[in-house]
Amino acid sequence: MTTKQVISREPFPASKKIYVKGALHDISVAMREITLTPTRLNGRHGVETPNPSVPLYDTSGPYTDPDQEIDVRKGLPRLREQWILQRGDVEALPGISSAYGRQRMEDTSLDSLRFEHIRKPLRAKAGCNVSQLHYAKKGIITPEMEYIAIRENQLAEKLFEENSDLWQQHKGHSFGANTPVKFITPEFVRDEIAAGRAIIPNNINHPESEPMIIGRNFLVKINANIGNSAISSSIEEEVEKAVWACRWGADTIMDLSTGKNIHETREWIIRNSPVPIGTVPIYQALEKVNGKAELLTWELFRDTLIEQAEQGVDYFTIHAGVLLRYVPLTAKRMTGIVSRGGSIMAKWCLAHHKENFLYTHFEEICEIMKAYDVAFSLGDGLRPGSIADANDAAQFAELETLGELTRIAWKHDIQVMIEGPGHVPMHLIKENMTKQLEHCQEAPFYTLGPLTTDIAPGYDHITSAIGAAMIGWFGTAMLCYVTPKEHLGLPDREDVKQGVITYKLAAHAADLAKGHPGAQYRDNALSKARFEFRWEDQFNLSLDPDTARSYHDATLPAEGAKVAHFCSMCGPHFCSMKITQEVREFAAGQGVDEQAALHTGMQQQAEKFVEQGSDLYI
Amino acid sequence: MTTKQVISREPFPASKKIYVKGALHDISVAMREITLTPTRLNGRHGVETPNPSVPLYDTSGPYTDPDQEIDVRKGLPRLREQWILQRGDVEALPGISSAYGRQRMEDTSLDSLRFEHIRKPLRAKAGCNVSQLHYAKKGIITPEMEYIAIRENQLAEKLFEENSDLWQQHKGHSFGANTPVKFITPEFVRDEIAAGRAIIPNNINHPESEPMIIGRNFLVKINANIGNSAISSSIEEEVEKAVWACRWGADTIMDLSTGKNIHETREWIIRNSPVPIGTVPIYQALEKVNGKAELLTWELFRDTLIEQAEQGVDYFTIHAGVLLRYVPLTAKRMTGIVSRGGSIMAKWCLAHHKENFLYTHFEEICEIMKAYDVAFSLGDGLRPGSIADANDAAQFAELETLGELTRIAWKHDIQVMIEGPGHVPMHLIKENMTKQLEHCQEAPFYTLGPLTTDIAPGYDHITSAIGAAMIGWFGTAMLCYVTPKEHLGLPDREDVKQGVITYKLAAHAADLAKGHPGAQYRDNALSKARFEFRWEDQFNLSLDPDTARSYHDATLPAEGAKVAHFCSMCGPHFCSMKITQEVREFAAGQGVDEQAALHTGMQQQAEKFVEQGSDLYI
Repeated sequence: MTTKQVISREPFPASKKIYVKGALHDISVAMREITLTPTRLNGRHGVETPNPSVPLYDTSGPYTDPDQEIDVRKGLPRLREQWILQRGDVEALPGISSAYGRQRMEDTSLDSLRFEHIRKPLRAKAGCNVSQLHYAKKGIITPEMEYIAIRENQLAEKLFEENSDLWQQHKGHSFGANTPVKFITPEFVRDEIAAGRAIIPNNINHPESEPMIIGRNFLVKINANIGNSAISSSIEEEVEKAVWACRWGADTIMDLSTGKNIHETREWIIRNSPVPIGTVPIYQALEKVNGKAELLTWELFRDTLIEQAEQGVDYFTIHAGVLLRYVPLTAKRMTGIVSRGGSIMAKWCLAHHKENFLYTHFEEICEIMKAYDVAFSLGDGLRPGSIADANDAAQFAELETLGELTRIAWKHDIQVMIEGPGHVPMHLIKENMTKQLEHCQEAPFYTLGPLTTDIAPGYDHITSAIGAAMIGWFGTAMLCYVTPKEHLGLPDREDVKQGVITYKLAAHAADLAKGHPGAQYRDNALSKARFEFRWEDQFNLSLDPDTARSYHDATLPAEGAKVAHFCSMCGPHFCSMKITQEVREFAAGQGVDEQAALHTGMQQQAEKFVEQGSDLYI
Repeated sequence: MTTKQVISREPFPASKKIYVKGALHDISVAMREITLTPTRLNGRHGVETPNPSVPLYDTSGPYTDPDQEIDVRKGLPRLREQWILQRGDVEALPGISSAYGRQRMEDTSLDSLRFEHIRKPLRAKAGCNVSQLHYAKKGIITPEMEYIAIRENQLAEKLFEENSDLWQQHKGHSFGANTPVKFITPEFVRDEIAAGRAIIPNNINHPESEPMIIGRNFLVKINANIGNSAISSSIEEEVEKAVWACRWGADTIMDLSTGKNIHETREWIIRNSPVPIGTVPIYQALEKVNGKAELLTWELFRDTLIEQAEQGVDYFTIHAGVLLRYVPLTAKRMTGIVSRGGSIMAKWCLAHHKENFLYTHFEEICEIMKAYDVAFSLGDGLRPGSIADANDAAQFAELETLGELTRIAWKHDIQVMIEGPGHVPMHLIKENMTKQLEHCQEAPFYTLGPLTTDIAPGYDHITSAIGAAMIGWFGTAMLCYVTPKEHLGLPDREDVKQGVITYKLAAHAADLAKGHPGAQYRDNALSKARFEFRWEDQFNLSLDPDTARSYHDATLPAEGAKVAHFCSMCGPHFCSMKITQEVREFAAGQGVDEQAALHTGMQQQAEKFVEQGSDLYI
């Protein structure tokens, strides 16, 4: 089995991996650093001014570090293993606890598919709770929390000192959020976790993951869905899907596989994923009963939870808010129930005329979650599937129940986030956020889009990016991506990239609008490069350097064009940036000290300048 | 010269052109009508229910009507010619008035490039004003106004009676706009024009254009930029660019050509364009002085205005707000002046140390505009070119001047819209709209995006669609598209389509959020088709049927899949819509009358239903 070829490992252009040390713990936080070329304003003074390199939050994991050896058969280095063990509250089990997991292990026909180095699962010792929320409430700053503080800061302290010009940014508007003032400290991370306003999804059985945080007062995150299907791709291809999504910026991956061998595929993905993995366990449970929702049982579902928790799934989508009495509320809808999990549970409820077993067994689910530190992603099974159904009684009834379940989970010190819509016209988006904050007491919101119109299948990454950027600004902590294939078919590699980049820019637009500290630094660095015709820097600083470069080169492929003071869009006569530089040089050539005269940038000062300037010109 | 092949003429799938008669005037308003397949809910009752066809606003012009003969050498039929002549206030000139236009006509080397059927230009008789604003203020409902009322309504009255279910929509939020309550009447159009809140750009020398309106209280419009470049494309290719953009939804086209033979190219484009054409005359003026901004003169510019007005340009971008005293306000900017027109005028102002001649000669410009009914698009020469520069003193100083110029233009009964930014983070977008409404007294706003982050070159159609949708919701009347090549190179055919569709969906999202009457009808029709697995209808109702169909067929190409009750995204076991239909059928099969029990959709009712239902289930 050769795997080297299929895994994307190429470092980003002009980028290197850097590792920043912790102060409280022995940790090394991975980031990407982009080296910039110096500014050469021609004509002006001919001076070459260096531009400091730009450190970036990096989700790509060890794959983009050429010094790291990667072997998908062995899995990634177990970054967090010692942190977990050193807390002394876990024990290695003698073997897999779930009946289904054992059955798969004993099936020799699966040997060729199986990850070779399956370790004994860890579980909390009896009476212990290994969730980050539990530690945070006890006042403990874990290595995970310090890692996150350093990671979120992206060397802000250093940048702030080095180049305060680029550090300038607009005061944001964050709708009453607890947005950090300047830098993120480990204590701030702990405090947000303790308050339930943020979660760190990192199962003790997924030590390969690099700690990350999902919360309103941190950088907005994005999730990418992957999953094998009936016409199954190979296991290397499945791993590559995750690696590919992380490369472009996915902060978490949901494995929504519904095909064959999903137990084995999941093992490969988790062992090789540098980001947290989420699943919807009811999907696998349904596969186990051959797609017959009415045959689902609590016992089967419970076994599935344990099976996946012991593999290392970091968060579970649980549709426990789809109550029997809410199902009829969807009867008059334009598009009924569009959540797969929601429709499965609705069918079960109606078939048995019983309350949703996820709801009735919720405290038992909590017992499992806290033994592995699996976070809840409380599913919005009744989210709207069309503009017509937005913000209706079914949706908001379920949201209230999710609030009730949040309080139960918190009672168990379990981390919780809440899933949100869906399809919502722009003017009804804010209400979703407001109600979520109110009912779920600021537990992180995790939304799918929302799509702001139904009329553009094929472009729903864009219809939803509009809603995603807005709801991110309003306070949503993580945005679940939508690809161009939404509603139409299975996304391929290019669709995944389109979805990830689109959501990355939406999340960043939200960070800017919230006024998240340092968020504007990259925009400033890129705009400065653009204005100074540092084309390579402009490409390298962009979310997708390959596409930016190839679009430029489509009309001006020559190397010389990379330093030209124009591009093919407007041509040399019409480049406004070029003319502006000429204007500035013209003024300088006449002895006009623009900097001094215009220091305040106020109109009156400018008028004075014009008066004073009368002698200087002509 | 064979031209038939290069012009896109294929009608949209399942669509036909319909022509709706006027009541006040002898007019036929072109629309597109999509025929839908009947609903066949399998299992339920087996009944086939027809779905009424969906009429749509159609910008594609005669090209998509197979009954129309198209010959780009002759130009489109002159739809408005008689309307213009019958008003009795215009005269045909003996020939072209502009010196440059005459010079080009006399140059026999251009004969092969020249449109063959150039007519004598029309101009207002001495003392007359032929602008739609002038007529509106006098209480006249022109054929153009009635055409627009019918066109904007999209047969709303008929749909409302036929199918009130699909007519249902959310109450919007329109920030105090004068949103029509149900249908748009000719008198409403006249009143909005008279108030200066909307414009109808239609030069008397462009009788081929189908009347359209740009105003906050009408459907949000989009503009696409085209233009030839140094490496000139052929004239047929230029015409096709415009036809192609209109096909996908461009409501107006700006011809930003900067290469050779732009006079002749423009003639071909206007003669074959069913939508209004805008230009930035300073670009051509600059070409005439070989790119040396300081050599520009009022006389040269004036001749260019007349040249273009007599060809039939419908609106001119005029950067008359870039005042000498504002230029220094841009000195400390991250990206200086990024408007091409703005930077040209700034350079002229500084070089001569004189006030902008577009400002000092503004009333003379007005005299030209009203003689042909050319509308102003007052250019925002100082718009921000980066997030850092958003909403700064330079930008808002110019906006105040644009307000002053609006009042001058209105004094002359000339139609005016105002151009807006640019690059603006989400939380600063609203301020742009608020200030524009205040300073320019509700003259229509026409914005470029705005882009909500700078970090995604290659994806700026998306970074800007976010801002465009939002500012459209806040009240912007027309959105100037941005293509994926923005900042990087010249857009090709596919980029133009991507830009147009992206902006079309953003404009529609804005219509939904404003609660524009009937806006949700198409979303409802498409969502109903989606829920009922009418795949062909779903494709045909979408903004881009070709892409929707090809994405679906990428994984399920068989014809049978077009009626299948699932798609490859989730597969047969996991289709939530399929499960929902099963849920409904299950309930129906048990004798549960969901419709009656759940009529109100209220939670308490639902609870009662569950209690009552105990006997009905199992």
